[in-house]
This record gives sequence, structure tokens and C-alpha cells, in this order.
Amino acid sequence: MPDRTANTKSMASIFTRIINRDIPAHIVAEDDRCLAFLDINPLVKGHTLVIPKAEVDYYFDIDDDLLSAMTLFSKRVAYAIKQEIPCLRVGVCVVGLEVPHAHVHLIPLNSMDDINFSKPKLKFSQEELMAIASRISSHFK
Amino acid sequence: MPDRTANTKSMASIFTRIINRDIPAHIVAEDDRCLAFLDINPLVKGHTLVIPKAEVDYYFDIDDDLLSAMTLFSKRVAYAIKQEIPCLRVGVCVVGLEVPHAHVHLIPLNSMDDINFSKPKLKFSQEELMAIASRISSHFK
Repeated sequence: MPDRTANTKSMASIFTRIINRDIPAHIVAEDDRCLAFLDINPLVKGHTLVIPKAEVDYYFDIDDDLLSAMTLFSKRVAYAIKQEIPCLRVGVCVVGLEVPHAHVHLIPLNSMDDINFSKPKLKFSQEELMAIASRISSHFK
Repeated sequence: MPDRTANTKSMASIFTRIINRDIPAHIVAEDDRCLAFLDINPLVKGHTLVIPKAEVDYYFDIDDDLLSAMTLFSKRVAYAIKQEIPCLRVGVCVVGLEVPHAHVHLIPLNSMDDINFSKPKLKFSQEELMAIASRISSHFK
């Protein structure tokens, strides 16, 4: 098993602070083990991040039970996104080279280029993000 | 539930033909419900696809039980890839706008750009792909 002890301090990261409500985020869905909120630098409208509440850096180090739960939570969030955002389907991406807290990108796709991280990010106002999150959240079951 | 009847014919697709061994592929891992094989147009060395044996077009239409199984199978494949291919971690991407059979890309990452689908794809010989698949497969547990 990887030693995550060394990461514990640095991982009181932006995502843990979002979970703890120490910093604000546009939350879309939550259960006892996962949280979903809008990416602050979205590739497209409705671009959402899903994170485990447990602090794990690398996605595939997440234990089997939580990884399954996170996948099924992501499925429910993806359905809610698709109800609200016009798209062909919701794509998935896990990169994880930046923030050391595993996170799944859920990206409404209309073309391959919508999932290109080298593209310039979109900018929405806080009011727009709040409205998008609220509308997606209303479809979450 | 989405109607997949209309897709059944077109979905005797390249992936189903790989499952049925009607066409060759460089298979990395297999269990009763999932198959992993090298992407024939890899973004990087070791780029692998994981598919369910059941014919489902959209990833998030996969039923919960199979979706969990596929995620945990992907985790085992990702560990095998990381044993063989020098990389910081194995990234995940599900796009699904081309082949109508859900598939998860597992991509060994050393930089963000390794997961950019707009990049030119790499070319390896059949012998090279066979050797890569065999070596990754040897680490699959």
C-alpha cells in the first residue's frame, strides 16, 4: 500500500476545504462519501468535478468499495447534468497531475474537442455558476 | 430506459468482434464480464481500452453492477500498466462519440498533454504491440 501519511498535510487541499465548507463552491450533489461541484475553470458549461470525501491522491489508490460508490455517484450526477445541459453524452476524465486529491471530471460532450484540456477555459460569473449548479442539482436523484 | 434495439445490428461492432475473437487485438486482461486490449491508435505507449462484454453504447447506461465491476477491473489493469510503463499515474477517459460500445481509455500519464486526443497518434508495429500487451498482462492480478 502506498504511504499517504506524507501527503496528509498538503492535502488539507482546496478540495478538502470545499468539503469542509471552508471555501465556497457551486455544489451539485452530495452523499456521505462523495461530493460533486462545478469546475471553476470549465471546459464547457456544466463541467463538474466528483471527489471522494476521503483524502486519497491517486484515483486508483481509492479502495474498491469507495471507488465503486464514487462511480455510481458519478453516474447519478452525469444523468442530472444530461437533463440540464444540451449534450450528446457526458464524458469522464481523470488526470490528477495537479490537485493531490482524486477527482473525476464529468464533461458534457458535443464533440471530441469538448474534452481537450489544452483549450482555453470558459469564464462564468458567480451568479451564472450558482444558477447552473442549482439547475443540475434539481435533477439529481 | 433507453432503447438500444436499434443499435444492436451496428453494435456487432469492432469491439464485439474483438470479444468474439473474430478480429485480432492485443489483449491485456480478461474476466467474465470485461476485456482490456491495447488501443490500436495509442496516444502513448501502453494506452489501453477496457470494455464491457455486454453491448452497451453509452457508458453511463451500463447497469450499476457491471459499471462497478468494470471500474474495479480497470483499477487492476491500471496497476498492471503502471508496473510496466514508466508514468506518474494512469489516467482515465471516457468519450464515446465514435464506436457505439462503451469503452474506458486507460492512459499512462507523464504530462497533461498525454491525454490530449487531438494529438497525432503513435504507431507501433504488430510485434511491438504484442510485446507491450504481453508484458502488461504479466503484471495483471
